[in-house]
Amino acid sequence: MADRLVVIGGDAAGMSAASQARRRRTADELEIVAFERGHFTSYSACGIPYWVGGQVDEIDDLISRDPATFRDEYRIDVRTRHEVTAIDLDRREVVARNLDDGGREVREHFDQLVYAAGAVPATPEWARTDAAGVFGVQTLDDGAALLDWLEQDPSPRRAVVIGGGYIGVEMAEALIRRGLTVSLVERSPEPMSTVDPDMGALVRKALCGLGLDVRSGVNVSGLQSRDGRVVAVHTDAGTLPADVVVLGLGVRPNTALAAEAGLPLGPTGAIRVDLRMRVPGQDGIWAAGDCVESVHRVSGQPVYVPLGTHANKQGRVAGINIGGGYATFAGVVGTAVTRVCDLEVGRTGLRERDATAAGFEFVAVRVESTNRAGYFPGAESMTVKLIAERRTGRLLGAQIVGRSEAAKRIDVLAVALWNRMTVEEMANLDLGYAPPYSPVWDPVLVAARKAAAALR
Amino acid sequence: MADRLVVIGGDAAGMSAASQARRRRTADELEIVAFERGHFTSYSACGIPYWVGGQVDEIDDLISRDPATFRDEYRIDVRTRHEVTAIDLDRREVVARNLDDGGREVREHFDQLVYAAGAVPATPEWARTDAAGVFGVQTLDDGAALLDWLEQDPSPRRAVVIGGGYIGVEMAEALIRRGLTVSLVERSPEPMSTVDPDMGALVRKALCGLGLDVRSGVNVSGLQSRDGRVVAVHTDAGTLPADVVVLGLGVRPNTALAAEAGLPLGPTGAIRVDLRMRVPGQDGIWAAGDCVESVHRVSGQPVYVPLGTHANKQGRVAGINIGGGYATFAGVVGTAVTRVCDLEVGRTGLRERDATAAGFEFVAVRVESTNRAGYFPGAESMTVKLIAERRTGRLLGAQIVGRSEAAKRIDVLAVALWNRMTVEEMANLDLGYAPPYSPVWDPVLVAARKAAAALR
Repeated sequence: MADRLVVIGGDAAGMSAASQARRRRTADELEIVAFERGHFTSYSACGIPYWVGGQVDEIDDLISRDPATFRDEYRIDVRTRHEVTAIDLDRREVVARNLDDGGREVREHFDQLVYAAGAVPATPEWARTDAAGVFGVQTLDDGAALLDWLEQDPSPRRAVVIGGGYIGVEMAEALIRRGLTVSLVERSPEPMSTVDPDMGALVRKALCGLGLDVRSGVNVSGLQSRDGRVVAVHTDAGTLPADVVVLGLGVRPNTALAAEAGLPLGPTGAIRVDLRMRVPGQDGIWAAGDCVESVHRVSGQPVYVPLGTHANKQGRVAGINIGGGYATFAGVVGTAVTRVCDLEVGRTGLRERDATAAGFEFVAVRVESTNRAGYFPGAESMTVKLIAERRTGRLLGAQIVGRSEAAKRIDVLAVALWNRMTVEEMANLDLGYAPPYSPVWDPVLVAARKAAAALR
Repeated sequence: MADRLVVIGGDAAGMSAASQARRRRTADELEIVAFERGHFTSYSACGIPYWVGGQVDEIDDLISRDPATFRDEYRIDVRTRHEVTAIDLDRREVVARNLDDGGREVREHFDQLVYAAGAVPATPEWARTDAAGVFGVQTLDDGAALLDWLEQDPSPRRAVVIGGGYIGVEMAEALIRRGLTVSLVERSPEPMSTVDPDMGALVRKALCGLGLDVRSGVNVSGLQSRDGRVVAVHTDAGTLPADVVVLGLGVRPNTALAAEAGLPLGPTGAIRVDLRMRVPGQDGIWAAGDCVESVHRVSGQPVYVPLGTHANKQGRVAGINIGGGYATFAGVVGTAVTRVCDLEVGRTGLRERDATAAGFEFVAVRVESTNRAGYFPGAESMTVKLIAERRTGRLLGAQIVGRSEAAKRIDVLAVALWNRMTVEEMANLDLGYAPPYSPVWDPVLVAARKAAAALR
């Protein structure tokens, strides 16, 4: 009889796992059932801001494989609009409700289980409202609902985005593109708190230059509604009128079912996994994606980094192993990039506060350079910050804020981090030079030299 | 009495050495004399195509520091238009001719000597012509002469660029920008022979798409002139009419003086140096820049890579050591990038032929991907090629051909090479992902996965 794999969650991690398992084991050897609460599978949630902003035309553009493709080409039994309500580890069963069929309950036996339930948006008390016009942007369903709202007649004119992280600033851009007046409210002293405040200040200035009303260091106390529609956001620095409110407050791992079933959670609150994405102490139980924690290769500590790129890799690793192959997930160094209009931000490794928390002594340096030779048309300024351990000189973290062709340079620093390079050695790196791409001393090299000097 | 440093060559390597030495030793401790044959110091020869093409307005834009600045701010006695004619190691003297003063000879004593005479253009027999309208593009003086020629009335209409390397394709773009009809003649089967022929074929197609008449696999046999002006280029595949001919045939190290003085040349024909840029077996003699050879960190062999980025680093290393500090040049991995209109090419490490010559057994893989998420506006295709050693899986080389935001990704691979990463491990790298920057699987990761699979 065939083995049975049940997958909880039909997005990046879950469907990567299912596809990879299928590549290695035929439908005769392995039955695969995948439950997904929403309508869609394997979509780019990261693309939602560009869909809302009109840069991407069709919801279909964001879907890499739809349920029919999985069913027909992969022989994976995808059940959308099914919400898993319980995992019974003793009976090795998953219980789910069919949301389109009055909540009819189904039970499915498994030999192997992939828990890939993703994340849930952080929703403070004040955000739990029935008022219309308040949107998260985690799923395609969220994006579709927001787009409907924006396309009302008369259309909303004033937007407040709450949360100044990646999704917040990207949504702010999307709403500006649609012609709305947008305020961005962020609790931290500077937006984009995944970079240090000195770099965040550069981001704030640039965002203001884009016409965004940035309110950082501001706490939201409540939403005000009238006739069931949101009309304003109350903050400790005044009230902001709003025809639409977008919540970009970050996410937390969706572990409720896992915790109930007794799967182990780590110190970050996300599910613990081993190198092969197995849940420790559980036979045939795997987890991957925005619900698990990872090892940070710089601090050696567990971290929670819910990003699509990790979800895809982790799902793939789980699937290869389930299929009888061998693969491991090597951990993260904390790389992330974003673009808001022509502002680019990249980061990798530890921020100053992370380095301190991890117990490192360090130096931090910042250099201003340009993305091209200074004389080349389109040369624009770029700030590179490096953090390096005292004495060893080992790179601990890096951040870049610039205009065009800036953020993706963080990858150079991510590879240096991965290999535990010292800033002294990094200053020697053989990086590509031509006037359209960098000054003759690449900004990364200039920063490494300055960090090495600061260590002497 | 002060020590005396004489520098031969006033461009990147020589003036970096002089400036770094000056930073560490005052004019009372170290006198510095620098001889430069041309009119200019510390300029970006790499910028000449953009100046000729009109993207850079002024010759001054290409000069990072002029002789007056060196004299006034650095107290370096820069003597432009002085051609060094001999080095007398026994008497520790340099002999130079003042080209602006009837060739008057000067002799200067030195305690320390930096030989940074750069490179000379390769000029086959047929290229040694007195005909007007034939130009190299190695110095700013060359660029100025070409610009004068292009600004004649009536202006030249048909150009032939001979040599399909970096400078050749960049000059071809410049001439297209100026409205000329341009043929590019290259002896190798494909242009840009610093990448493998399969990647060169992509370059050729793209160049043709830019309106360039690419003639690869074609040998030049001679230039034809009339009334002292060039009128055509004869090749083994027919005659090309030409109002202007640009020679981009590469360079060789300018070692004549060094060899005469008995400085050791290596197997590449360039000057041998140690880690600190000392000439072995010579006391107080240093060399740096386009006249020296470097160690290739992948093959372990000496190589000749005349690039401004190395010249700057090497000059800096020499100057720090001369100044009493400690610095070493760590070698090269062969990284280079170029852009021709919107075509981008990057390369690092060994090509297939280099890997074979070095004795490696290897696999080579090629993947097609995009520079952004496929659905994101402006997504364009990109080809990434990786070469990896059999059995160890170590990366040996990489090449990228694409449109925008493609070439500089080679730096990620250069850092991986530098750290002797395997393609298996590279497939795990934590690279930045967001839809404006890459698909969720970065092209570098996709290529690394494919290479790892090919090794199994």
